Amino acid sequence: MSPVSNPSLQHTTQQRRLSALYKHLHPNGAATAPDHNLTTKISPNATLKFGSITETQQQSFDVESMAEWLLGPNTNQKLRQKILAMSKADIIRTPMLNLPKEEQRRITTEQIKYILASGEYRISLMKQNPSEMMQRLECMTFFPASASVKLGVQLLLFSGSLMNLGTERHKDVLRRAEKGEIMGAFGMTELAHGSAVQKLETTATYDPDTKEFVINTPSKNALKWWLGNAACTATLCSVFARLIVKDQDYGIHVFLVPIRDEKTKQPLPDVIIGDCGDKQGLHGVDNGFLGFKNVRIPKDNLLNRFGDVTDDGEYTSQFSSNARRFGAHMGELITGRVSIVFSSLQVRRASVLIATRYAARRVQFGAPDRTGEQSILSYRSHQMKLMPILASCYVYEFSKRDLVRKYTSLHSPDTKISDDDLAELHALSAGMKAVFSWDTQKYLEICREACGGHGYSAYNRFGSMINDHTIFQTFEGDNTVLVQQLGGFLMKEFAKQFQKNQVGAVLNMIGSRIGSAIATINPAQVFTNPNVKSSNFQVQAFRHRTASILQTCAQQINNQRKKKGFVNAWNDALPQIVSLARAYVEQYALEQYVSQVRRVKNRELRTILKRLRNIWALTVIKDNFLDFVNIINVKPESIRKALESQCEKVSTHAVSLVDAFNIPDHVLDAPIGLSKGNYMDHILRYAIERNPGNHENIEGLLEGILESNDNLTTQATSRPSASAERSHQSSLSEQTLFHSSTEKAESNGDESDVESDSDDEMEQ
Amino acid sequence: MSPVSNPSLQHTTQQRRLSALYKHLHPNGAATAPDHNLTTKISPNATLKFGSITETQQQSFDVESMAEWLLGPNTNQKLRQKILAMSKADIIRTPMLNLPKEEQRRITTEQIKYILASGEYRISLMKQNPSEMMQRLECMTFFPASASVKLGVQLLLFSGSLMNLGTERHKDVLRRAEKGEIMGAFGMTELAHGSAVQKLETTATYDPDTKEFVINTPSKNALKWWLGNAACTATLCSVFARLIVKDQDYGIHVFLVPIRDEKTKQPLPDVIIGDCGDKQGLHGVDNGFLGFKNVRIPKDNLLNRFGDVTDDGEYTSQFSSNARRFGAHMGELITGRVSIVFSSLQVRRASVLIATRYAARRVQFGAPDRTGEQSILSYRSHQMKLMPILASCYVYEFSKRDLVRKYTSLHSPDTKISDDDLAELHALSAGMKAVFSWDTQKYLEICREACGGHGYSAYNRFGSMINDHTIFQTFEGDNTVLVQQLGGFLMKEFAKQFQKNQVGAVLNMIGSRIGSAIATINPAQVFTNPNVKSSNFQVQAFRHRTASILQTCAQQINNQRKKKGFVNAWNDALPQIVSLARAYVEQYALEQYVSQVRRVKNRELRTILKRLRNIWALTVIKDNFLDFVNIINVKPESIRKALESQCEKVSTHAVSLVDAFNIPDHVLDAPIGLSKGNYMDHILRYAIERNPGNHENIEGLLEGILESNDNLTTQATSRPSASAERSHQSSLSEQTLFHSSTEKAESNGDESDVESDSDDEMEQ
Ligand SMILES: Cc1cc2nc3c(=O)[nH]c(=O)nc-3n(C[C@H](O)[C@H](O)[C@H](O)COP(=O)(O)OP(=O)(O)OC[C@H]3O[C@@H](n4cnc5c(N)ncnc54)[C@H](O)[C@@H]3O)c2cc1C
Ligand SMILES: Cc1cc2nc3c(=O)[nH]c(=O)nc-3n(C[C@H](O)[C@H](O)[C@H](O)COP(=O)(O)OP(=O)(O)OC[C@H]3O[C@@H](n4cnc5c(N)ncnc54)[C@H](O)[C@@H]3O)c2cc1C
Repeated sequence: MSPVSNPSLQHTTQQRRLSALYKHLHPNGAATAPDHNLTTKISPNATLKFGSITETQQQSFDVESMAEWLLGPNTNQKLRQKILAMSKADIIRTPMLNLPKEEQRRITTEQIKYILASGEYRISLMKQNPSEMMQRLECMTFFPASASVKLGVQLLLFSGSLMNLGTERHKDVLRRAEKGEIMGAFGMTELAHGSAVQKLETTATYDPDTKEFVINTPSKNALKWWLGNAACTATLCSVFARLIVKDQDYGIHVFLVPIRDEKTKQPLPDVIIGDCGDKQGLHGVDNGFLGFKNVRIPKDNLLNRFGDVTDDGEYTSQFSSNARRFGAHMGELITGRVSIVFSSLQVRRASVLIATRYAARRVQFGAPDRTGEQSILSYRSHQMKLMPILASCYVYEFSKRDLVRKYTSLHSPDTKISDDDLAELHALSAGMKAVFSWDTQKYLEICREACGGHGYSAYNRFGSMINDHTIFQTFEGDNTVLVQQLGGFLMKEFAKQFQKNQVGAVLNMIGSRIGSAIATINPAQVFTNPNVKSSNFQVQAFRHRTASILQTCAQQINNQRKKKGFVNAWNDALPQIVSLARAYVEQYALEQYVSQVRRVKNRELRTILKRLRNIWALTVIKDNFLDFVNIINVKPESIRKALESQCEKVSTHAVSLVDAFNIPDHVLDAPIGLSKGNYMDHILRYAIERNPGNHENIEGLLEGILESNDNLTTQATSRPSASAERSHQSSLSEQTLFHSSTEKAESNGDESDVESDSDDEMEQ
Repeated sequence: MSPVSNPSLQHTTQQRRLSALYKHLHPNGAATAPDHNLTTKISPNATLKFGSITETQQQSFDVESMAEWLLGPNTNQKLRQKILAMSKADIIRTPMLNLPKEEQRRITTEQIKYILASGEYRISLMKQNPSEMMQRLECMTFFPASASVKLGVQLLLFSGSLMNLGTERHKDVLRRAEKGEIMGAFGMTELAHGSAVQKLETTATYDPDTKEFVINTPSKNALKWWLGNAACTATLCSVFARLIVKDQDYGIHVFLVPIRDEKTKQPLPDVIIGDCGDKQGLHGVDNGFLGFKNVRIPKDNLLNRFGDVTDDGEYTSQFSSNARRFGAHMGELITGRVSIVFSSLQVRRASVLIATRYAARRVQFGAPDRTGEQSILSYRSHQMKLMPILASCYVYEFSKRDLVRKYTSLHSPDTKISDDDLAELHALSAGMKAVFSWDTQKYLEICREACGGHGYSAYNRFGSMINDHTIFQTFEGDNTVLVQQLGGFLMKEFAKQFQKNQVGAVLNMIGSRIGSAIATINPAQVFTNPNVKSSNFQVQAFRHRTASILQTCAQQINNQRKKKGFVNAWNDALPQIVSLARAYVEQYALEQYVSQVRRVKNRELRTILKRLRNIWALTVIKDNFLDFVNIINVKPESIRKALESQCEKVSTHAVSLVDAFNIPDHVLDAPIGLSKGNYMDHILRYAIERNPGNHENIEGLLEGILESNDNLTTQATSRPSASAERSHQSSLSEQTLFHSSTEKAESNGDESDVESDSDDEMEQ
């Protein structure tokens, strides 16, 4: 068992040797793994009342209809299939674990070239057909995370800066970047400044004599830091720098700065290029740092859409203030935020899918008088971990879809979007990016843990999802900074509301009530002993929560700004502003979901979808009870009981519900989460397949053992001796206290799982 | 910038070249990094009212006294210093990032040999001086995580099984294992079974003809899986298998099975050895799988303390039932759980230390009329992230210490521990292991995010802490399974209580009140408009919470077991049992802390310690408000307000509070968290030092830039032009709505930070 420094090298030489072994792990004889079926029609489904599932059970509802509904009516199936097909290419599926970052970066760069060569990922398509372009971006989750992020830098950040901040004269560079002929970096962040972009220190000083800009890094704090593509691949960088003309500082503008020789790939003179080094994840992305020692670039390299300099050094701009011009420059970051919204949701789905399929298949412990063991998904504690995550994957689909709709209408040539709508889009994308990514990160950890030891295997992907996803909370805008944009927007709307309603013209005249446009009903009357499973109750409770936090925030800031100044007053309110943004994003999600579910004709599906809503809404109420306690008059027990029983009901559909996510096995690539087969075979196969050098000479030995218990039912009854049964379950040893020796665990029976629509009779 | 497949190899050749560069990054000229001071006496400390901290400010309180208190009176300083010194050895500090797992495993194995050679880590020392042995285990956090876990396998699991389950005849193997002459694995888990150990399928069948046991893996589900040391290093394994004698199954026993030739290190005949492969973290630990094809071992290899077989095949044991004997075998897992309790707390401290020092140093945005920017620790939202974590690091110290005390008294030769105490110790260690590790994992993610982009750098260690720590939730017993042990124990105690008090003899007679031993006060009377900052209120609220959940659980299970059977009733109560365990662990922590803080003479320290308690207790109440809402009659606003203001107050002491953790820089090894120096220098230095091959030819270019702004004050005033100031802060663009152009942000002034003891006048 010699250490292997680079396992991928040994792969080919050992493949033949292992093929004999693999056939044991593929009962149907197929040695090509994994299964590439796009839809998982034969899905395991659990009855989950004690006993293990088998692979032959039926779907618990019409999965295909559900999948279709979840995908949405506007999906271009041909486009989706095309990208899925691309995602099966060998270069995309190259295993990357255990390779040094330099090797992972090399593979990722090849992946990007392959993807760009398809022509599907050109930013200019955003203008031609924004809706389809958004679908392409959504499909980027079929690619490995590093490739997807590196592509994002090239496509949305670098090419995006050319398209959105450049003019005619930058079109040629854009075209070359779209083909991947030029790789670019996006140079905003500096060592000392990330969120506070206006404090950047890099300068671009105009020299009228040579008609050049002189780009300079005045201090080490001003080194550009973290730039994707900068460490190895980029030849050009969009550099954010203060424009200085005739000693006057015009604030942040963006300049195209060549950093490497296009042919030799060597750093250009006076350009410092360094490697930021190892990261928590995204090992395939080459994040680097840059410094400029009075590097001269032609005047035309200013991306001059929002501000320009004449040859003899006059500054011109359609914006009168630095602040507004700055806003225009930053506005384009929104695409990245919307992308994170759906990427984050997709990661969440993959993770709960793996955990749910595993939970349905894995058995552990069981009722003492039975031969079988109990699927871990049948444990109430397990249901309470996974079902709220699963529910959120359904509920969040529709606010996401609405956000994408808003975003695409901004880009369609025939729509004229109002300033108000634009402001809302900014605020909403910022807030949703934050809440989606916060929650997904939390959920990833729960799903990992729910899979026990096998969840810790790198092959089951929780590790890489956790490490790659976490940065979604930080880049494209730090979450805590972003939610303040949504908070500010809402307070502005709140102020307007009062102006319109003549209740008061200025903030400091806010009374104790909230205007009718925000909430109409007196909480005390509506929320006493409500039906916690009704959508009406839930929507009203969520609205009142938003309204009450909004009112508190606005009032507090308004009262304190006179005493402390605005910045201090704002700072004092920050914890509440964070809550406000969450409340709003959750309310928006709930309302979008309710209105979409109402349109579902299929009664069976609608019932399940309502239960998912109950689970999600009640979880939000439970987790934020401090927000709700003054609004609703409900016993804690009734929240808990309703939540637990809804989780139990939905758990019997859980496998079909994750099947409807329609994530193909080759994308999933996790042995415990594949759509078919015995998960233990898959685990063993991955361990052997991915570490060929470490499994010499075990083929012969494994034979025989491999042929044993090919399904779980056999396993459950093949224990050596019945006498052992007596003592089992007692590793929860204290439980035995409650056992009476004559007691028999009884089946729950097939309790009615049908729930009338009247659970939700109050649908408006 | 050529890709480097193994950066460690290039290290030596490039070191000279880079030394010129390093001196810029070490202003004092010392090229040896990092700083190895054991105590960080000169600690940066923030005033934190707008403006950046400098390195010269004073400690906010007597850090040395605090550190001493936190370390505890029984610490053997000489021992601690000795292990600290060991932890500075080159082999221990070898950088491991970006190395393939095979290389990391090799280094980790060398580290273990080095540590074992010291003679400090011999399990038999546990019998000689249990308290000191526990200190040694606690000091294992000075070593890298992989080394610490691999050492744990050798020391606690493998050698521990020999010591605790073996007899005289196994002493020799134990001695050799303690010296590291033999490396061993601990073979409990199988592919199909982790938590449910009693369902293991591996068999050990006695053959009276040869006086041997035949070890067999009957199926692939029964492959031993995940065993530390098995993939590469172990020559022996303690195998958990069902003992079969004369066709009778006597349940789980443990057998010493040779798996590799001691000389050649090749697998022995009929032993399957495989590599479990890549994991989320702990890359230095070689987890492997094992299978046995009728492998014969001598009869003496049975670890026969609790059960034995005579030569001619009669089974003997001091236990009459399989279940009790099983309990005895499993009991020894407790040491590992106690270890996780303090390791987890130590990881939590390291993580909040890094985040807190960074938060005090990092500035971002600022009041519009100021030249300086604002330390991010001055943001209320940031305080609300970090201060509760910091507080928990203080509060949890004392329940941990009490647990260790209970544990060591179990091992001291002169104490005879009662069965009741033993049961409590089991339950408590299980519950604390779960709650400590759950919370630390959540906190790690918060700390990472609080450090923004720089938190994502692998050098800042959040990544490895997250990936290495997460498995603490799973191994040595899955958390959700473990909390059921504590839950079961409490319910048993509850039942006893009622028997003693004659309130009722059986569970189904429980009334609606809780016995006086558990809670004495009528909630309605005590908790109306209480002082939420008093320890009395907090302790009572926590007690009532535990009591009410306990009562609900017991009642529910008791009612339902008749209808559904015990297993189903237990399952239905699981979510509440999880809450019960948390409530109890938190109550225990609070009570231990209160009683310790009461003894602190130094008034200044006591005031701060009480604020930490307030922060922690109020956070628990806020996060679990559903548990508390029926108990306490407090306005949500008063919880929130008190919590926020306590966080703000403590934030001014935060840096000194983390300094008192006394974690030396060489252990911390995180550029943004080191005790001294400019964090940006450290970041740059690490990037260059750890990637020598990727930073060719930049020395000359970096000169000049490196000499700029060596402290943050310079940086804050060196911005190119004042005109830019006008627009800053507006990337939170909606905020400008509230700005009036004439408004000035005023200093908070130096508000009284002194708080009278009367905050807590109700100390009993
Ligand atoms: C893998 C990776 C790739 C990246 N790629 C690029 C790239 O290609 N190009 C590029 O330009 N940049 C890139 N970045 C940088 C990224 O955009 C920044 O890290 C991000 O904007 C956050 O900034 P920061 O790291 O400076 O955090 P900071 O702004 O310093 O924030 C640190 C902490 O302070 C808190 N904080 C800051 N301000 C406030 C406030 N006003 N109120 C409350 N809390 C506050 C934050 O919540 C955060 O927790 C990348 C970063 C990473 C890690
Ligand atoms: C890095 C690593 C090192 C290890 N080292 C060793 C070693 O050296 N030797 C060794 O023997 N083992 C080792 N293990 C195995 C480890 O001890 C097991 O993974 C652990 O005991 C959990 O068992 P499991 O993985 O089978 O999870 P399972 O028991 O299958 O649990 C899976 C999920 O089901 C849930 N669940 C299970 N039962 C219940 C229940 N009754 N009620 C509610 N929920 C339930 C759990 O909460 C969990 O979320 C190691 C594992 C890892 C990952």
